[in-house]
Amino acid sequence: MNANVEIITIGDEILIGQIVDTNSAWIGSQLNNHGLEVIRISSIPDKKAEILKALAEAEQRADIVLITGGLGPTKDDITKHTLCEYFDTQLVLNEDVLKDIENLLIPRGVEINHLNRDQALVPKSCKVIRNPMGTAPAMWFEKNDTIYVSMPGVPFEMKSIMENSILPELQNRFHTKTILHRTILTQGIPESMLAEKLADWENALPGCISLAYLPSPGQNRLRLTARGDNYDKPGNILEQEIKKLYKIIPANIFGEEEQNMAEVVGNLLRSKNQTLSTAESCTGGNIAHTITQNAGSSNYFTGSVVAYSNFVKSNVLNVRPETIATHGAVSRPVVEAMATGVKNLLETDYAIATSGIAGPTGGTPEKPVGTVWIAIAGPDKLISECYSFGKNREHNITRTTMYALNLLRRMILVEDEK
Amino acid sequence: MNANVEIITIGDEILIGQIVDTNSAWIGSQLNNHGLEVIRISSIPDKKAEILKALAEAEQRADIVLITGGLGPTKDDITKHTLCEYFDTQLVLNEDVLKDIENLLIPRGVEINHLNRDQALVPKSCKVIRNPMGTAPAMWFEKNDTIYVSMPGVPFEMKSIMENSILPELQNRFHTKTILHRTILTQGIPESMLAEKLADWENALPGCISLAYLPSPGQNRLRLTARGDNYDKPGNILEQEIKKLYKIIPANIFGEEEQNMAEVVGNLLRSKNQTLSTAESCTGGNIAHTITQNAGSSNYFTGSVVAYSNFVKSNVLNVRPETIATHGAVSRPVVEAMATGVKNLLETDYAIATSGIAGPTGGTPEKPVGTVWIAIAGPDKLISECYSFGKNREHNITRTTMYALNLLRRMILVEDEK
Repeated sequence: MNANVEIITIGDEILIGQIVDTNSAWIGSQLNNHGLEVIRISSIPDKKAEILKALAEAEQRADIVLITGGLGPTKDDITKHTLCEYFDTQLVLNEDVLKDIENLLIPRGVEINHLNRDQALVPKSCKVIRNPMGTAPAMWFEKNDTIYVSMPGVPFEMKSIMENSILPELQNRFHTKTILHRTILTQGIPESMLAEKLADWENALPGCISLAYLPSPGQNRLRLTARGDNYDKPGNILEQEIKKLYKIIPANIFGEEEQNMAEVVGNLLRSKNQTLSTAESCTGGNIAHTITQNAGSSNYFTGSVVAYSNFVKSNVLNVRPETIATHGAVSRPVVEAMATGVKNLLETDYAIATSGIAGPTGGTPEKPVGTVWIAIAGPDKLISECYSFGKNREHNITRTTMYALNLLRRMILVEDEK
Repeated sequence: MNANVEIITIGDEILIGQIVDTNSAWIGSQLNNHGLEVIRISSIPDKKAEILKALAEAEQRADIVLITGGLGPTKDDITKHTLCEYFDTQLVLNEDVLKDIENLLIPRGVEINHLNRDQALVPKSCKVIRNPMGTAPAMWFEKNDTIYVSMPGVPFEMKSIMENSILPELQNRFHTKTILHRTILTQGIPESMLAEKLADWENALPGCISLAYLPSPGQNRLRLTARGDNYDKPGNILEQEIKKLYKIIPANIFGEEEQNMAEVVGNLLRSKNQTLSTAESCTGGNIAHTITQNAGSSNYFTGSVVAYSNFVKSNVLNVRPETIATHGAVSRPVVEAMATGVKNLLETDYAIATSGIAGPTGGTPEKPVGTVWIAIAGPDKLISECYSFGKNREHNITRTTMYALNLLRRMILVEDEK
């Protein structure tokens, strides 16, 4: 059964352009993966009359209406009261929701006040969907064969509710075409060069498989989509094509789906019971931050010395001041000495070091903004590479982080093969 | 004269979530600055029937309809033909546009083909607005007192057309209401507690001022909006209300508009010619990363020791192993010793230290996940605070970072007052 979806995002901040509505794109891509078609996205203000009109219009067009925003505890959030009016019902206290709110806020030291308690009031006629990440629950309504779901607008709360509750329920209710996705994560090759390398393979892909490039700073994701009436056939074809892909770019594929590079590296280190430290100049702590975003990273990550000044490079990491004076801080000898220095100081098996010109200023004709040296020290090896990453400070930091982690990943794999 | 605007963005890629519609937010903020109110944003697919319906609906609601997308040279771009149908007109060749296209493409080595030439076909009844940055011109229509402008969807082309042609023309035509915005950035107080503290002030706000809460992990933004027929009066009232707000929560307001906390702290340090280092356990380098995201941070930020393991806490930061054994790594004595240790080692005026249980595991009944100690060492002061930030690892890291930077900010300001 084919089902049309309309997304309604509520909030003055969207219409005045204070925030970009990223919820709709995320919801659109998720529904697309589940074979449901979004026919319209409407963004409307926090005004009762506008919300009522949008709901009535959506009912004419869509089988499913997904609504985000306007469920906060403050006065400007009026979605819940407006839904009561639209569905001709009233607010009642939900004890389970109140308990969820208390469990979330009390450990944080928040004193529960009437605003928090008001968030446990829900329309009587809806099915309540609890929100594990926040205080506003989602609400599921049905009217004239149309399903309406109202969710909080905070992206991580909305995503958790969609993934855990709404998407599975919609899949149950609507019998949709089989669409399979696999996402392959690549690093170390720019998009246009990657496309050139994959051209023959891409041109020979069977009709049921489509390919999308999803570039982001420091990595390119390849999304392969297989479509068919049943699960097995497109699944097998997809599997075969991915095997071919691995043979074309073996050094560049570091993972699949939602994996992140630091997690892949962390799993390798953990499996070998080895440890890592970093010495960061231009990345300013971002490699350490990227590694420690992953739970359990304390098993293999010992720590980092962010050596933003030359004083720290010399006095903590034992880089000789003459080396810095002779070659400059952004140089092979300095970045190699940093890697060795932190590896010895923190007594780890591996170490990453970075030194570069993140920008926007600080470049010279010989070393323009974007020049970055990366060194990796291993149990019995020390390598270093120089890159030119361009003028954008944020991208330079991200790219350096990704390239450094991939260099380390490949060194660990080579050690493995010995 | 008050004028309502509707934005329509056309493109299948928006509805399947392949791209995020950033055009609407940009247009919304520009119109808002010019006193024009966006009442709805609609995103629709590249389908004739849907485009016709959306145009007719917008005509009922809006005085001005701004349309982006669907003007490219390929088969899936059908906006222009659909506009001809809607406005009952036909395509005619525009020689000026053809010249613009040739001037743009020939120097790039593109051979002009029939697809390029078709882009010089424009609806006969529209006013053509030339596109200095691309091949598709914009088109201005009027029908039943409604203005319609169709623009290319490529953001930099659309922006250039808006800035150079559309916004000035709209300002000429509509004598607009004045709308003023001020955004106040607060830290260190959860949304519901903030709302309670501000309730009396909020309830007493004059009718021309409205307030919105924009929460995100570790900070809450307050957006005040003033509306009026001229500039001066609402501007003065807004100014007065903001002065009152500063008196209610003086310690929590750290900046305004687009500032970030690390930038505010950096400016304070730079103005006093003082330096900062960090010793990070649970934040894993994120404070250093947050500081070094700002260009010029090397002027005041010396570096960091990310002491993820106790070995680093003792051997690099000189925290006595007995202190760790007696009190545990997440404790006041350890975090204070870390702050003092890094301040001495990196020879800075100020130092931040963090130690906590980021989660999801590692908690105990006495120190559950989310328990965080933060210490700030200053030229002649050492303070420390304990927080409970909840169960989400990512938010714990972000919240600790924001709270730590705000504690430092307040210490610097107090030093200033002496």
